[in-house]
Amino acid sequence: MTATYQGIIPPMITPLLERDTLDEAGLERVIERMIAGGVAGIFPLGTTGEAPSLSYRLRRELIEKTSRIVKGRVPILVGITDTSLVESARLAREAADFGVDAVVTSAPFYFPAGQPELREYLEQLLPELPIPLMLYNMPALTKTVFQQGIIEWAIDQEQIIGLKDSSGDLVYFKKMRRLAASPRPDWSFLVGPEELLGEAILMGGHGGVNGGANLFPRLYVDLYEAAKSGNLEQVRIFSERIFALSSELYSVGKYGSAIIKGIKCALSLLGVCDDFMAAPFHRFHESERERIAEILERHAVPS
Amino acid sequence: MTATYQGIIPPMITPLLERDTLDEAGLERVIERMIAGGVAGIFPLGTTGEAPSLSYRLRRELIEKTSRIVKGRVPILVGITDTSLVESARLAREAADFGVDAVVTSAPFYFPAGQPELREYLEQLLPELPIPLMLYNMPALTKTVFQQGIIEWAIDQEQIIGLKDSSGDLVYFKKMRRLAASPRPDWSFLVGPEELLGEAILMGGHGGVNGGANLFPRLYVDLYEAAKSGNLEQVRIFSERIFALSSELYSVGKYGSAIIKGIKCALSLLGVCDDFMAAPFHRFHESERERIAEILERHAVPS
Amino acid sequence: MTATYQGIIPPMITPLLERDTLDEAGLERVIERMIAGGVAGIFPLGTTGEAPSLSYRLRRELIEKTSRIVKGRVPILVGITDTSLVESARLAREAADFGVDAVVTSAPFYFPAGQPELREYLEQLLPELPIPLMLYNMPALTKTVFQQGIIEWAIDQEQIIGLKDSSGDLVYFKKMRRLAASPRPDWSFLVGPEELLGEAILMGGHGGVNGGANLFPRLYVDLYEAAKSGNLEQVRIFSERIFALSSELYSVGKYGSAIIKGIKCALSLLGVCDDFMAAPFHRFHESERERIAEILERHAVPS
Amino acid sequence: MTATYQGIIPPMITPLLERDTLDEAGLERVIERMIAGGVAGIFPLGTTGEAPSLSYRLRRELIEKTSRIVKGRVPILVGITDTSLVESARLAREAADFGVDAVVTSAPFYFPAGQPELREYLEQLLPELPIPLMLYNMPALTKTVFQQGIIEWAIDQEQIIGLKDSSGDLVYFKKMRRLAASPRPDWSFLVGPEELLGEAILMGGHGGVNGGANLFPRLYVDLYEAAKSGNLEQVRIFSERIFALSSELYSVGKYGSAIIKGIKCALSLLGVCDDFMAAPFHRFHESERERIAEILERHAVPS
Repeated sequence: MTATYQGIIPPMITPLLERDTLDEAGLERVIERMIAGGVAGIFPLGTTGEAPSLSYRLRRELIEKTSRIVKGRVPILVGITDTSLVESARLAREAADFGVDAVVTSAPFYFPAGQPELREYLEQLLPELPIPLMLYNMPALTKTVFQQGIIEWAIDQEQIIGLKDSSGDLVYFKKMRRLAASPRPDWSFLVGPEELLGEAILMGGHGGVNGGANLFPRLYVDLYEAAKSGNLEQVRIFSERIFALSSELYSVGKYGSAIIKGIKCALSLLGVCDDFMAAPFHRFHESERERIAEILERHAVPS
Repeated sequence: MTATYQGIIPPMITPLLERDTLDEAGLERVIERMIAGGVAGIFPLGTTGEAPSLSYRLRRELIEKTSRIVKGRVPILVGITDTSLVESARLAREAADFGVDAVVTSAPFYFPAGQPELREYLEQLLPELPIPLMLYNMPALTKTVFQQGIIEWAIDQEQIIGLKDSSGDLVYFKKMRRLAASPRPDWSFLVGPEELLGEAILMGGHGGVNGGANLFPRLYVDLYEAAKSGNLEQVRIFSERIFALSSELYSVGKYGSAIIKGIKCALSLLGVCDDFMAAPFHRFHESERERIAEILERHAVPS
Repeated sequence: MTATYQGIIPPMITPLLERDTLDEAGLERVIERMIAGGVAGIFPLGTTGEAPSLSYRLRRELIEKTSRIVKGRVPILVGITDTSLVESARLAREAADFGVDAVVTSAPFYFPAGQPELREYLEQLLPELPIPLMLYNMPALTKTVFQQGIIEWAIDQEQIIGLKDSSGDLVYFKKMRRLAASPRPDWSFLVGPEELLGEAILMGGHGGVNGGANLFPRLYVDLYEAAKSGNLEQVRIFSERIFALSSELYSVGKYGSAIIKGIKCALSLLGVCDDFMAAPFHRFHESERERIAEILERHAVPS
Repeated sequence: MTATYQGIIPPMITPLLERDTLDEAGLERVIERMIAGGVAGIFPLGTTGEAPSLSYRLRRELIEKTSRIVKGRVPILVGITDTSLVESARLAREAADFGVDAVVTSAPFYFPAGQPELREYLEQLLPELPIPLMLYNMPALTKTVFQQGIIEWAIDQEQIIGLKDSSGDLVYFKKMRRLAASPRPDWSFLVGPEELLGEAILMGGHGGVNGGANLFPRLYVDLYEAAKSGNLEQVRIFSERIFALSSELYSVGKYGSAIIKGIKCALSLLGVCDDFMAAPFHRFHESERERIAEILERHAVPS
């Protein structure tokens, strides 16, 4: 038995035309670009998808249209992270109705739950979910870590099928990976920060949920495959390419929003989709856009 | 001209019978208890009201019923803090339709906005609001402070009418209070932590938004009035009474949820309302409930 | 029985001519200025005194010369905070030999000790101290809080005589003050941040250890006395004066060093002492110095 | 040109008999054990060496005796991290007099320096150092990161020869490694957390400064060599062995001190040296010691 999800599953950006208005044509191009790039799945409504900033109406619309465009060619995992269990559960049911394969949740993120409270939260959520659940460790934004005890419990729940770790803490990743190895060979361990993708795969991870794969999916798939096959030389080459690109592309803006802004701006420059962002963020100004254009040109990554 | 809101405006707990079900009879008793206790307003859907944990449907129901019960006897300020501007704005419009007096927002709390982003967020939110806005500084849960530059800008916006500060940082409170003093004598400065209520009023604050005032409103009103009239002897007596009570009542549970759990449990013991809590929290177990009962009995605060 | 130390006990800056060289004439003027201003004691080698940045040789020299200049006119409390218990104990013995009245220690600040470890640390330190000890809560710099359990234990130790709290958390201050009230009326509760001096004294604190009292000791003594006698009107006036001054004086520089730099620069402009600072800090550049001069002139506080 | 330091350079524990008393015989056995295990150098007075907890007298004694025992067989790098530049510089001169090869400093750790202040600090320190300097990034304990700007400056300083990174943030490690690659091929990049040793070497790091190498030096040297030669299979085996051991050995105690306590206790059980610890820590109690003994026995790592 092997991990259910393996490979690159990009946390899809949400193409918007304006506030609360989806860029449908852009969405189709984003999805086709990723599928053409060899991704192993698509993950809408994650952090890169600005999910918490979107209205529930738009989230539903996005799930529905993503599902229609993908048409089963790759699995879809939908983020349902919320502060309200009722809303999380409703979104999960709607996602299931649209044929989505799995849902993904982080910890509820207004009140920082104690670990026993977090476990109870998951215990209450599970029966509401018609499809499998993947956990999403994102303490920088949720204030709450899925600690070892929770993961040990989760490994015993058939309905929970893996962990996406965006903590940036590779020691945590490896520790949790070890816990599941023998009892749950079907669990998928996916890593968030693209700068750690190579290492995570080399050390037994199953894939990456990397924002940059919205932009250059093939590059991330190449790194994944090099690492999976143990080709160190290629891992170094592709890692360096990603590092060189992302270290420039994500540092044009200030604040934590720089990464999503950089990706959306680059996609807009490449003619893929609009770069409108949901509040509290906004698209880059012209001067920043020019710097992104210059970076893209200099790196000339084939899509 | 004086501050619009002065006195105790309790952050109302949300009485629940079970998940997504309001305890209507309890709600009425909670509200009547507060009004009888002399409060200057009621603030549903704040942190103590577990707002982020509630479904939007329930939030609307709560606003509607609160409004019907209060019937204009005191002002109602409704929390609209959200991660999605679209949802915040919708809730504000609904609140206005139900005759609410003002809305209250903290920073969007999944993505930590940079200060310029936070200001743009407010600039976009203001035109959507049919009623005045109060800011709510709650960095421990939102990760974002309303820093001096934002407050200086907000003082220039007629539509923004004050600041509720739950940071626990009295230096911040005094600093912001000084900024508004001369240009905006109508601004209300309300303090969150009840352990600082006396000091905040003595130093020019206008009122308190204190969780414990759900339980013993008169005690908080007494402290407010003593402080407002500069009666130091009485300030010390009432402060000590609140401190003695709250330091026990809020430390029965572990984790940050101990305060809300303690208040709801005490209200339940007093026959006011049910103590069901929205996920990720849950009501106290029997042993904790017995400790709360013992504390209540020992302190014997007249409601 | 009343608290041993009451009033303003400035955390004395360390006047330096250059690296590892005391400004002796400046030291004398600083001390005489404080004593003339009515201070109730002097606290060399605290945070404002840049103690951790000084060589041990200089620390000894400073204690010796401070002791000679003060000549018993006011008590001297010497900071012995260190990462090494052996060095702390040695400094305490030397301080006692020079006739110092008490020593002050925060938590050891490289390794963050668990609370039981912190208690054992104090248990090992006490027998090494020939004079009484005051605790100093400074978690922003030491990473470790003296939590309630430690304070409860400390109240039982005759040799420990009080707490200086620089956390800025007035709820903590009030909570610890309540614990000692009845068993140890001799304990002194001194507050660090000068912006909270008035409130802390009004609520039962015994004094302040405020950096600004190096500069304008009389102003802080005035506030202390107004608060002690319950004169709210005067408390507001003096508080506002301190706030107005400090909010400008301490915000000329960036980084946490802005406060000490501001005080030393102002003292230098007033002809009291040199403003050389120990590494990793350095005195203000000319442009910053001019801003400090302008602030001093505008406020024209009589020394 | 290649990196000056390559391989495993254990951060040597400081064997103590009691407070301020070196365990000389233990020291000799610890050093011989490491050299026999194939280490590429020895690093006394780091975090694992409890340096900040030791008196200066003992630090000098330790340098002298370490130097005598090592007799030039491997390089010695001595930690001089301090809050006082004067004391750091003095220790560096003494270390140079004893024939030490290089010194290592983290940021001064009481006052958190701004980045320009940190750079000035290093600029002032460099002329005082008779031997080369390695930087040591340890933000969890010093509160200050050596950010990119500092590292870029440091790469231009001939006297600075590398970076030891104990942040646990492999993205930071890789980012800094990239900066130095071309201008300073002689720079050494050493990684702290042993759980990341394999990955760090695979991705271009030059060695590890890993606490566990006090105990089982050969195991860490084996992992280093496997990673250096790109033998992924062996990297996984040795990584797993280290992970399995350390995840148990370092989690017997609570608090951050658990790692050093675990290593010293294990060395004591193996008859290598005493496990006395400097305040604020203390050796394990008997029950914890028994658990360490059980773990050692179960893993049966050959030294």
